[in-house]
Amino acid sequence: MEKKNDRQATWIWYPGDFEIWLGNRMNNRRTERGAFFPPFWKQDSHYVTVEFSRQLDLPDDERIEIAAEGKYNVKLDGHLLFGMPRELVVPAGKHTLCVKVWNQAAPPALFVDGPTVKSGPDWQVTNEDKEWIDESGKASDTSASVYMQAGSWHFNSPSDRPSAFCLDREIIRPVSVRKEGEGRLYDFGKETFGYLRLQGIQGSGTIGIYYGESAEEACDKEHCETLDHLRVIPSLVTDAATGEVTDITDCYVLAGSKALRHVLLVPQGEVSWTDVALDYEFLPEQVRASFTCNDGEINRMWQMAEYTMHLTTREFFIDGIKRDRWTWSGDAYQSYLMNYYLYFDSDCVRRTIWQLRGKDPVTAHVNTIMDYTFFWFLSISDYYLYTGDAAFVSQIYPRMQSLMTYVLDRTDADGMVRGREGDWVFVDWADRPMSKRGALAFEQVLFCRSLETMALCAELAGDTAASEDYRKRAARLRESLMPVFWDEARQALVHNVEDGRQSELITKYANMFAIFFGYLTPERQRTVARRVLHGEDIMPITTPYMRFYEMEALCALGEQTDVLRQMKAYWGGMMREGATTFWEKYNPEDHGTAHLAMYGRPYGKSLCHAWGASPVYLLGKYFLGVRPVKPGYAEYEVRPVLGGLGQMEGRVPTPHGQIRVYADEKKIKVSSDEGHGRLLFQASGMPSSNMGTPVPAGEAGLWQLEILPGRTYIVNR
Amino acid sequence: MEKKNDRQATWIWYPGDFEIWLGNRMNNRRTERGAFFPPFWKQDSHYVTVEFSRQLDLPDDERIEIAAEGKYNVKLDGHLLFGMPRELVVPAGKHTLCVKVWNQAAPPALFVDGPTVKSGPDWQVTNEDKEWIDESGKASDTSASVYMQAGSWHFNSPSDRPSAFCLDREIIRPVSVRKEGEGRLYDFGKETFGYLRLQGIQGSGTIGIYYGESAEEACDKEHCETLDHLRVIPSLVTDAATGEVTDITDCYVLAGSKALRHVLLVPQGEVSWTDVALDYEFLPEQVRASFTCNDGEINRMWQMAEYTMHLTTREFFIDGIKRDRWTWSGDAYQSYLMNYYLYFDSDCVRRTIWQLRGKDPVTAHVNTIMDYTFFWFLSISDYYLYTGDAAFVSQIYPRMQSLMTYVLDRTDADGMVRGREGDWVFVDWADRPMSKRGALAFEQVLFCRSLETMALCAELAGDTAASEDYRKRAARLRESLMPVFWDEARQALVHNVEDGRQSELITKYANMFAIFFGYLTPERQRTVARRVLHGEDIMPITTPYMRFYEMEALCALGEQTDVLRQMKAYWGGMMREGATTFWEKYNPEDHGTAHLAMYGRPYGKSLCHAWGASPVYLLGKYFLGVRPVKPGYAEYEVRPVLGGLGQMEGRVPTPHGQIRVYADEKKIKVSSDEGHGRLLFQASGMPSSNMGTPVPAGEAGLWQLEILPGRTYIVNR
Repeated sequence: MEKKNDRQATWIWYPGDFEIWLGNRMNNRRTERGAFFPPFWKQDSHYVTVEFSRQLDLPDDERIEIAAEGKYNVKLDGHLLFGMPRELVVPAGKHTLCVKVWNQAAPPALFVDGPTVKSGPDWQVTNEDKEWIDESGKASDTSASVYMQAGSWHFNSPSDRPSAFCLDREIIRPVSVRKEGEGRLYDFGKETFGYLRLQGIQGSGTIGIYYGESAEEACDKEHCETLDHLRVIPSLVTDAATGEVTDITDCYVLAGSKALRHVLLVPQGEVSWTDVALDYEFLPEQVRASFTCNDGEINRMWQMAEYTMHLTTREFFIDGIKRDRWTWSGDAYQSYLMNYYLYFDSDCVRRTIWQLRGKDPVTAHVNTIMDYTFFWFLSISDYYLYTGDAAFVSQIYPRMQSLMTYVLDRTDADGMVRGREGDWVFVDWADRPMSKRGALAFEQVLFCRSLETMALCAELAGDTAASEDYRKRAARLRESLMPVFWDEARQALVHNVEDGRQSELITKYANMFAIFFGYLTPERQRTVARRVLHGEDIMPITTPYMRFYEMEALCALGEQTDVLRQMKAYWGGMMREGATTFWEKYNPEDHGTAHLAMYGRPYGKSLCHAWGASPVYLLGKYFLGVRPVKPGYAEYEVRPVLGGLGQMEGRVPTPHGQIRVYADEKKIKVSSDEGHGRLLFQASGMPSSNMGTPVPAGEAGLWQLEILPGRTYIVNR
Repeated sequence: MEKKNDRQATWIWYPGDFEIWLGNRMNNRRTERGAFFPPFWKQDSHYVTVEFSRQLDLPDDERIEIAAEGKYNVKLDGHLLFGMPRELVVPAGKHTLCVKVWNQAAPPALFVDGPTVKSGPDWQVTNEDKEWIDESGKASDTSASVYMQAGSWHFNSPSDRPSAFCLDREIIRPVSVRKEGEGRLYDFGKETFGYLRLQGIQGSGTIGIYYGESAEEACDKEHCETLDHLRVIPSLVTDAATGEVTDITDCYVLAGSKALRHVLLVPQGEVSWTDVALDYEFLPEQVRASFTCNDGEINRMWQMAEYTMHLTTREFFIDGIKRDRWTWSGDAYQSYLMNYYLYFDSDCVRRTIWQLRGKDPVTAHVNTIMDYTFFWFLSISDYYLYTGDAAFVSQIYPRMQSLMTYVLDRTDADGMVRGREGDWVFVDWADRPMSKRGALAFEQVLFCRSLETMALCAELAGDTAASEDYRKRAARLRESLMPVFWDEARQALVHNVEDGRQSELITKYANMFAIFFGYLTPERQRTVARRVLHGEDIMPITTPYMRFYEMEALCALGEQTDVLRQMKAYWGGMMREGATTFWEKYNPEDHGTAHLAMYGRPYGKSLCHAWGASPVYLLGKYFLGVRPVKPGYAEYEVRPVLGGLGQMEGRVPTPHGQIRVYADEKKIKVSSDEGHGRLLFQASGMPSSNMGTPVPAGEAGLWQLEILPGRTYIVNR
C-alpha cells in the first residue's frame, strides 16, 4: 500500500504573481458612464517564465501527475524529459525535480500530485535560474539565483486552475418595481452588486440601463455614474460599450458587474423584456465574529458594517463597489483591521498586500499616494501581530526593502519626507483647505512607524544589519518629531512646517496617530485629547476614513463613552438617512441629495465604502476589548469596556478559533480556543471568579485574570 | 476636399514592449529532443496598461478611426467618451486626445487614422499617468509622469495587428530522398529552416521525425538535437510533445519550426505518408550589398555568409537556427555589424537591442554574461554611427542608464569589474583552460568602451551632467589599463590580474580589442601584432566569434593580405568540409564527425551560426573599405585594399542609398547616393581622376579624393 501524505497538493506560482494578475483584472473592471476606467498608476504583471523545484527523497518509486498553466518542461536530476509529460514515475531515492513554465497571458502555475510528492508552499520558485553550461556540457553553479517559497491559495485539484478563478454568484430578485417615465425602476431593497439579468428580451431597439446606489441616481440618466446600453435586433443583443454581440436566449446576463440598489431600464424603439434579476456576486466569507448588546441601533450598526465589509471584500479588499472598485492602500489598511474582527481572512489580506505592492522597480508611491505607502508598511506589522505568520513577512520582505529604498531616496537632509513631483500627499478628503506643502506632521508620524515596521520585519527575515539601520533611522526621526512639530503654547502637533516655520494650522491627523502609536507622553496625550480631539475650533473630520482613527484615539484614551455617543451620532446618522451600507463621506450638516454628491458630481460619492465599516473594529477591539499582545494571539488581552452599554456579548476570531466575551456592569464571561490571555477589568471592590484568581493590575480599580484556552471564566465584580 | 497628411498611420505601442513580447515568443520556441527549452534568465513583459496621447491642432473638424489591441477608452480634452468608440469626430481647434489601452496577453497597441490625425512615433505614451483628481473634481498636475515617444514598426493598417505578426513562409521541397533502415531520409540540399509538411498521412501508428544539420545527426535517433513524434490514428494526428490534436487532411504541417538540412522519418506501426516538404520560414530582407572578385572561393564565401545571416536574421538577430534560437547580446553585436554591410535593416537592430535589454529592474547581466552587457552598450554607439538615429538613443537612454548603474554597483574599489556570484564571465569558447577569476583585461577594455559609449549617449539624450560623469569614469579606467595589464617584458596585455599579480597567460582577446579601440600606442600596436596576433605560442582562436575580432584587428593594422589568407584557410576550410552555412565553432585540426560535436554532445554544435558570417563584414569594411566617419554616413571613408585580390567590386548600403566601389591594381571606381565621402588609396606615382583632384593624405603613397553623391569617380593610380 502506498504511503500517503496528509497534505493536499495545490496549485503554486511565483509569490505575488497570481495576485498581481488578478488585481489587473479587478482594477480594470471599473467603468464610468460606459467608459473603461483603469487606474492611473503603473500596473505590473507576472513573471512570464518561472522554474518550480523541489528536492525529493522517496522511500519508493512514485507515480506523479503534472498539470501546468502554460507551456512547460520537466527536468529530473538535470535531465530534460520529452514533451510536456502529464505523468512520471520518480524512482526511489534522492532527486531534484524542476518544472519550468511559460505563460504570457496568465501566471505560470503548477500542480503536481503523487502519494508523497505534492506541489505546495514548500516548493521553491525562481524567475531566472542562471543555469548556463560550459562547452563541455558542465552546468554552472546556480547559487546566485533568487529562489522564493512558492505562492498558493486554495486551488486543490488539477482542474481548479488559478486563471479560471471567479467569485461565487447567486440570483437575487428586486423587492419592488415601479413605472418611471418610459421605463421601469427596480429596487433591490438594499445596496448590492452583480450582473444584471434580463428575461424575455424581444423586439428591436435599445435598452438603456441606469444604475443607482440611490433612486435619485438611477433616475438621473444624464448624471448616474454607471450605465449600460443594449442594442437589440431580433435574435441578437449588442453591448454598446464593448461591442460584444450575444444571441438572445431566454435570459441575457450583462458581462459587466455593477453596484446598485436601484436600476432604471428605459426602452427605445419596439423593445421589451419580461423580468429583471441580478447575478449577485460575492466572496464566500464566514463571519467569525459577532456583537450584540442592549442597544438595537448599535446591533444594526454592527450588521450594516458587516454587510459593507462583505460587499467590499472581494478578490481583494477594495474601496467601494460603485467606484473606484480598486485596491487603495489606505482603504485596505482599515479593511484588514476590520477583517481581523470579522472574517479573519488572512488570504485576502495577503492577496491585497501583494497586489498593492506590485513589482520592482518602484516608480511611484503605492497608488501614487505618500501616506498610502506608509499604510502599506504598517499593514504588514499588523498582519504579523494578528496572524503570527512570519513566513509571509520573509516572503514579502524584499519588496518592503525596495519600497523603503524608494522612500529613503526621497527624504530630505533632515530625514523627513516632503511631497515631491508626482507624489500625491492625500491625508483625507477635507471640507476646508489644508496645506500639503512642506513637512506634514501626519506623514512623518506614519513614516516613523514604517521605519519601525521595517526594523521588525528585517529582523524576522534574518536581515539583522538592515534591521539595525532601520531602527536607528526610526529613532532619529522619532526624536526630531517633537522639536519640529510640537507647539508648546497650544500643546499640540501643528499640521505642517514650511521653510522651517510651524504653520498656524492644527489638525487632528498627526495628533491622533501620535496618541495610539505611543509617541506622546501621558501628559501630552491628555492635553492633545482636550485641545485637539475635543477642541471646538479644530476642523471636524467628515470621512469615516479618518473618523476611524479619531475614534481609535479616543478609545485608546479610555473614552469609549464618548465614542459610543459619536458612533450613534455619525454612523447612526447615516442609518437615519436611509443608508443600507456605510458611505465614503458623511457630513451631518449636509441635507438631502447633497449627501450623494462628491468630486463635483451629483452622485460621485460611493454609498458602500469599506472605510465606513469601522464600528466592527471599534466594538471588537475597544468594547469587547480583544487584542493580540504577541503574534498570532499567542498572548492576548481582553479588556471589556461597556462605554455606557448595559450589556454586550460577542466573539472575536483568532487564527484557529475564537475568543468569546460577555460583559455587563456586574459580570464578565470569557472563553477562548487558543493562546494565553489576560482579562483586564474594572471592579469597585474585590472581584471573584469561578476559576483562577483576579489580581490587581497596577491602576486603581483595575484587575487582571489569566485566561487559558478551553475554559469559561466568569468574573463577578 | 480634405487636406491629407502624407504620413501613413501606423500601430504604436510603448517603446520596447512589442519587442520584449515578441522576444518571449521567439526565445520560448527552442526545443531540445522534444522538450521545451526556455532561457535561464529573467524574461520581462510589456506594460499591461498604457496611455497614448497627442496634442492636436486641427484646421477643420476631422473624423478619425480608432483601433486598439486591448480594452480601451478614449478621452478628448479630459472628457471620457462612452464605450470603446471606433470612430470619432474631433472638432477644429486645439485638443488633447488620449487613449488608454489594457492588454494582459499582448502589448497594448493603438491605431488612429484620420485625414491629418495619424498614430505614429510622434505620439506620446506613458505607463502611469498619475492623473488623480481632488474632491472637487479638479485634476492633478501630471507633469511627473514619464512620457515616451511611442514605438512602432510597419503595421500600417487597422487589420495588420502587431500581435498577429508572423514571418513569411514558402513551400520548398527536398532535393533527394533515400531509404534509411525502416525510414526515409530527405535532403533539402542545404541548411534551411521551417515547418515540416507531410502529405497523405494514412493508417495508424507513430511517425518519428529526426532532424539533422548533417545526415549523421538525422540518422542518429538517439542523439539528434531536435525531433518530433506524431501519433496517428485514422483521421487524427497528435503531436506527442505538445499533446496537440489535429484532423488529418491531405497535408499536415507541424506546429514547431526546426533547423535542418536532412530529416529522417521513421514509421512505427501501419502508418505511411506520401510526400514531405517544408514550409520555409524567413524574414523578407533585401540584400543591399554585394561583393564579387576574381577569386571564386571568396565569392562563394560571401554568398554563404549572406545565407548564414539570412537564416539567423528573423524576428531578431539570433545566434543559430538549430540551437539556441535565442537572442544573445555578443552574437547579436556581430550580426548588427554584418547587417550594416548586407541588409542595413535598422529595424531589426533596434528590435534586438530592446529585446535584449528587457525591463528594469536589472537583476543580472544581459544573458547573464558580463561581456554581453558591454557588447549591448557598444551596439548602441555603432547603431548611431551607422544610422545617425539620435532619437532611438534618447528613447533607450533610460535603460542604458539603469544597466550601467547595475554595472557600476558591481565594480570594485579600483573601478574594475570582476565576476561576482551569478555573473557568467564568458569571453569565448576556448580549447584550453583560461582563468575567469580576478580582473580580466578583456572585460575592462569592453567596460571602458561602454563608459565612453554612455558619455556619448548621455550627451545625445541631453543629460550633460551624467555625460561628464561617465566621461571621467571612462578616462580613469582607461588610464589604469596599461599600469595594471601591460607586461613590459612580453610587450602585451596579460589575460588577467589576480590578487594584484599579473597572470602568466597572454591571450589574444584584450590585445585585439585594444588595437581597434585605439587604446594602444602605435608602437605597442606593432609589438602586440607581432607577439600576440602572430605569436606562435599564443592559444589559437577556434570560434568564428572571436576570429571576427582577430581579423578586424589585423585589418586595422593593414594586414589584409594575411586576413585573406586566413579567411581562405578558416572559412574556406568549413566550405571544404561541406558546410552550406558557417558554423558556431571550427577547429581545423578536428576531423570527420568531431566537427559536429560540442557541449559534450555529438551534434551539439550549431552548423548555422550568425557569428560565422564575418566575411561579409570584413570584405565590406576592410577590402571595399567603406565605413561611416560621422553618424548616418553624413561623412564616410572608402579605402579599398585588394589584399592580394586581382580585382573586386561591390556595394555597401547607407541609410538611404549605397556606395559602389570597384578596385583593381590600376583603377578605382567609386560612386554614392548620399553623404560626403573621402576616397583613400595607395598610388605609386601621381594618380589621376575623372573628377576632383587627388591630394596627398599624409602617409607615404596615400592619396585622398573627395567624393560627392550622384557622381562616379574613376581614379587611375
